[in-house]
Amino acid sequence: MKIDELDTPALLIDLDRLEANLLRWQRHCDQLGIRNRPHVKTHKIPELARLQIAHGAAGVTCQKLGEAEAMADGGVDDILLAYNIIGEQKLERLAALHRRINLQTVADSAEVALGLQRAALAAGKPLKVMVECDTGMNRVGVPTPEGAAELARLIRSLDGLEFSGFCTYPASFEAAAFFAKAREVCRHSDVTVPAISMGGTPGMWQHAALPGITEYRVGTYLYNDRIIAAHGDASLADCAATLLVSVVSCTGASWVTIDGGTKTFSSDQYGQTGFGILLDDPDTVVVRCSEEHGVLQRCGEKPSLQVGDRVRVIPNHACIVSNLHDTAYAVRGDDVVAIWKITARGKIQ
Amino acid sequence: MKIDELDTPALLIDLDRLEANLLRWQRHCDQLGIRNRPHVKTHKIPELARLQIAHGAAGVTCQKLGEAEAMADGGVDDILLAYNIIGEQKLERLAALHRRINLQTVADSAEVALGLQRAALAAGKPLKVMVECDTGMNRVGVPTPEGAAELARLIRSLDGLEFSGFCTYPASFEAAAFFAKAREVCRHSDVTVPAISMGGTPGMWQHAALPGITEYRVGTYLYNDRIIAAHGDASLADCAATLLVSVVSCTGASWVTIDGGTKTFSSDQYGQTGFGILLDDPDTVVVRCSEEHGVLQRCGEKPSLQVGDRVRVIPNHACIVSNLHDTAYAVRGDDVVAIWKITARGKIQ
Repeated sequence: MKIDELDTPALLIDLDRLEANLLRWQRHCDQLGIRNRPHVKTHKIPELARLQIAHGAAGVTCQKLGEAEAMADGGVDDILLAYNIIGEQKLERLAALHRRINLQTVADSAEVALGLQRAALAAGKPLKVMVECDTGMNRVGVPTPEGAAELARLIRSLDGLEFSGFCTYPASFEAAAFFAKAREVCRHSDVTVPAISMGGTPGMWQHAALPGITEYRVGTYLYNDRIIAAHGDASLADCAATLLVSVVSCTGASWVTIDGGTKTFSSDQYGQTGFGILLDDPDTVVVRCSEEHGVLQRCGEKPSLQVGDRVRVIPNHACIVSNLHDTAYAVRGDDVVAIWKITARGKIQ
Repeated sequence: MKIDELDTPALLIDLDRLEANLLRWQRHCDQLGIRNRPHVKTHKIPELARLQIAHGAAGVTCQKLGEAEAMADGGVDDILLAYNIIGEQKLERLAALHRRINLQTVADSAEVALGLQRAALAAGKPLKVMVECDTGMNRVGVPTPEGAAELARLIRSLDGLEFSGFCTYPASFEAAAFFAKAREVCRHSDVTVPAISMGGTPGMWQHAALPGITEYRVGTYLYNDRIIAAHGDASLADCAATLLVSVVSCTGASWVTIDGGTKTFSSDQYGQTGFGILLDDPDTVVVRCSEEHGVLQRCGEKPSLQVGDRVRVIPNHACIVSNLHDTAYAVRGDDVVAIWKITARGKIQ
């Protein structure tokens, strides 16, 4: 099948670019001697998780239990579930998943650790738990190195749990200093720290070399997007995910209108002007969006496009785009070479 | 089943509030003698489209063909598809849908109208087409009353098509003046204007009484949301859609963290601070979101909540929330009384 035969809007993944992105990053991790554990949130597709592992990734990272279940169903057997798992329903599911695969998860409090212990005992199999730390994100995590070391000691003491290291998001020099201190406190109480895991595509080329780091988690790096290119971690030529859309109206004085809006691109902007740019002409911008319409302008003027013309848009934020689509079309040149179901889409539980 | 038995995050719909919202608006339309044709984009659930019709709606509005197909599959047989339908694949689907139900659609250009003619002839059944006008939204639509009347004449002249009126979004006094002028031009060329259709929940109580209007399209009115309440078209006590979420971390100095982020609430803000407010305490705000985490603060301080506590959040923008969830739970008080599949979610084609 050719791209021309696809209806619009459609999410396209350029396989040549994707593979180059995977290779480049894996080589970097190998050179540094750190584990690459990419986050599936950007693609939510088991085939791509397996491709990441085939390229050398040690396993993957998931943020929701439902995502991890979808990946396990798709043949992935080494998962870090980097989220505080709370509540008996989820703990039962966690135990069931833990029986099936090599699972590791996190905790940032004793309450969470005690729940994980129940799941581990129910599964009848020791569960590795990292201590999640807040090294500046102000979201979740133990906020001090001393507190992190104390939780590590607690986890080590709980029957059924294994303390497997410290993790944080995003990577930073402050995080490296935090973990150096936490390690030092652990050393005094004879707690071994098997791993230091950090993450984040922005800054990944620098941050993966931070002192002490043993594992790096990246999400967007396989697709890249307008935000990552603006940050300088990739170029627009490395962006593998685009939205194929059609022009549906040219009645505007200074714009044309396409059949994709916030339901196609999301409303994420993170400082970008508009919601995306054309693959073939980055000066043409999706300047405004409602749910089902996007308005294109080229340097403030009407682009030379007609009703029925099709264009490809590089979105601002690829991760959230994957959460809006049920299907992704893998392309090489003009050919559609695979159709992937985005099976972890919408797995918010 | 009780709400307490649901896992989180989950989209809850308060049926008492929903029914009151439906009744109140239908009564208003009946008093004004105009047709109520609600937009399914807010709920995307055939059961709710049928409930709207049972309350007196003349039919529903859809914006994407896939939404209209999902509604037809769910037993809805009168649909205005308020979107320029472009391309042979969609025109074939349009013809198939037109054979099944009472379908009406729109055009804002001759190109679109000529495509619709092919679909109507293929269906072997006359297709009603409204002329969509741009009365200030600067998105799609014929931008002048003279141009609108000219397109009406063209549609009337095309074998297979019936000109069924003018439509616009959003309703406004300017739109009423635009249509008065378009009607006048039509009168000179002997074109009857069967309907004037406008829409928009913001301002609906005033706008439905605009001169000349025969049909009003509302979306958000059945759920309402924080934006609609801020605009004054409903109160917070009329908000029927909430997100049930759990507190997953209390390690923050001045915040607690919940298991819903932009994948649960969307990143739509439209001038609101943060991403939602608690149903039981509107001073507690989801001040920041990443994809899977939300950060709650109460007047800038840490709310009195513990890990595992569950709260309900009124979102900023209900429509886009429905597009993120596969399931909605209908509740009365503490009881879950129905589980709806959001079958038109993600129907972007």
